[in-house]
Amino acid sequence: MAHKHTHTCAVASALNVFGDRWTLLIIREAFYGATRFGEFLKNTGISKNLLADRLGKLVDEGILEHVEFSDRGTSHAYQLTEKGRALDVVMIAIQQWADKHLYGEGHEPVLCFDRKRHAPLPDVALKDARGKVISFSDLTVEPGPGADGRTKKRIAQANLDA
Amino acid sequence: MAHKHTHTCAVASALNVFGDRWTLLIIREAFYGATRFGEFLKNTGISKNLLADRLGKLVDEGILEHVEFSDRGTSHAYQLTEKGRALDVVMIAIQQWADKHLYGEGHEPVLCFDRKRHAPLPDVALKDARGKVISFSDLTVEPGPGADGRTKKRIAQANLDA
Repeated sequence: MAHKHTHTCAVASALNVFGDRWTLLIIREAFYGATRFGEFLKNTGISKNLLADRLGKLVDEGILEHVEFSDRGTSHAYQLTEKGRALDVVMIAIQQWADKHLYGEGHEPVLCFDRKRHAPLPDVALKDARGKVISFSDLTVEPGPGADGRTKKRIAQANLDA
Repeated sequence: MAHKHTHTCAVASALNVFGDRWTLLIIREAFYGATRFGEFLKNTGISKNLLADRLGKLVDEGILEHVEFSDRGTSHAYQLTEKGRALDVVMIAIQQWADKHLYGEGHEPVLCFDRKRHAPLPDVALKDARGKVISFSDLTVEPGPGADGRTKKRIAQANLDA
């Protein structure tokens, strides 16, 4: 990515990390157990140059880390860090949205099950403190401790519009 | 986006829709109440050409729709469709990940509250059918009804690796 978002926003900052066509596919592969360059290459369809670039960036960002698998005869293996594994909820939320709104019920390419009970994974959802499903329109947004002047102004406007 | 992912995968399909640096920022703005071209332009920092392209694609994808606000003297206004509003959980999951892993506690740019009780929005999480928080390693993946041969092969390999 040639140019990074510079404004103070969690979504913008996250897009600096994975806001491209490939990075979340590489992360998907890592969740599926891919560790080696060739596996990422084959399973995503990315080019070698782009893959090398993206893997390097994911290591720089602390989402993947190098590991050694001597039994596999290679020192170039990658695995998700804790920061990377914490993207599971993002990946599943994206998958569930696409299943419902792009493929449609009965056409899901992949299904997820709770391993212990072999029960379908419930939908990831926004819930209030009592566990009731809510939506964005039930929320208010406020400047957080890391807000800069621009963010504060934007949020004030958003609350006026709401 | 010049080239689309063609393989059968919910994540890949979703990235065909919003896998770039800008689209989720435009969607964030729509959640914050932006409706007009100039608002999206000012609040994201995108160029006019790219914004026109992305808004057109979001309308084509059924995520935004044209609306008329005669009181604002413009017929070019956009609002989220139901399919678009369903991305709230994706956007909040991304925001919460970035707050924790990019900004860190005490440095969040924006905080979300449940409007009714003014209580902090709980974390979006993967949960099993009983409501227990789980992670990707507690899941198994299986080919769904929409799986093609390539997906089936990939999933079989993932389950071997697990």
